[in-house]
Amino acid sequence: MPRWEPGARERLVLAAVDLFTEQGYDDTTVAQIAERAGVTRSTFFRHFSDKREVLVAGQESLSRLLAEGITEAPSDATPLEAVGAGLARASGAMGPHNRELGPRLQAAVAASAELQERDALKSVGMAAAMTEALVGRGVPETAAHLAAEMGVLAFKRGYARWSEGERSDDDTLAPHAADALAELVEASALLR
Amino acid sequence: MPRWEPGARERLVLAAVDLFTEQGYDDTTVAQIAERAGVTRSTFFRHFSDKREVLVAGQESLSRLLAEGITEAPSDATPLEAVGAGLARASGAMGPHNRELGPRLQAAVAASAELQERDALKSVGMAAAMTEALVGRGVPETAAHLAAEMGVLAFKRGYARWSEGERSDDDTLAPHAADALAELVEASALLR
Repeated sequence: MPRWEPGARERLVLAAVDLFTEQGYDDTTVAQIAERAGVTRSTFFRHFSDKREVLVAGQESLSRLLAEGITEAPSDATPLEAVGAGLARASGAMGPHNRELGPRLQAAVAASAELQERDALKSVGMAAAMTEALVGRGVPETAAHLAAEMGVLAFKRGYARWSEGERSDDDTLAPHAADALAELVEASALLR
Repeated sequence: MPRWEPGARERLVLAAVDLFTEQGYDDTTVAQIAERAGVTRSTFFRHFSDKREVLVAGQESLSRLLAEGITEAPSDATPLEAVGAGLARASGAMGPHNRELGPRLQAAVAASAELQERDALKSVGMAAAMTEALVGRGVPETAAHLAAEMGVLAFKRGYARWSEGERSDDDTLAPHAADALAELVEASALLR
């Protein structure tokens, strides 16, 4: 028995991602996504305006959460501590659905040049949102950009480990993302 | 009188990028690109297999040059010194055509969601090529990834300054890229 029951929106995302993997993004229709998810087309359109938005919607809220966490970090936090606060905020919003989605989204991206481009733009969007939030804290632009790129790397590495790792009820994304950031900070000392 | 006369290949790239800006990537045909460049369609196809390749060809050689410079850096070079060698190698291959292209490509990218995705994937490809070359030198994967991201940032920032700056005959990309990397290294000390 599954511990977690996805709602219609989550089922639509999983169905879309699996269909993109199986038959390609271009050849997948909204009707097919709705059918696979066991909902009607009009339910699809209550959640998303088109199949593209199935992918984009989560990305936008992720960027927003990262930026909010950075903006609301204590005023004496260093740039990397603020990035850590952004990762914590975004990680806290990631539940079983996101963990389930990880490897399946990765499979879809691996199978499609179009989804690779879209996935790359997602990273750019996350970096831009974090850079802007850091600059808003008074971090100089160059340092902000670099700290944001470290944040993107940490999020992606933490997410990958979390979603590929052993399943247990109390395993959340947050410590994986924090560990990944700490490893990057440690690595940065060895670069020169 | 222009100091630099572009050949057919360079004219095709500039014509394509300008047409993408003016009328969108999807609505631009090979015939239009050839006409704007003042060459025949068959000349286009001697240089590129389709309009997509006009954008991709330069990206692939850029990634290759970055990786070669890293691989061939002195064996006692630090990861960031090796990245600097990669930037120097790639910068050395960038001439007046690339400088001319910079702001026009940026305009095309700003005007098109599709080209934004493609441009984002270019950065991912550059980072992957540099990461692989660094790992090949024995740099641990986390440090390699971070150094590669710093290299991508440095290349993009140096390129932007070079192509937006004052035109002079002896101004090359290399010192701009090197300065941008040095600034990132300096900024990295202020992040914690």
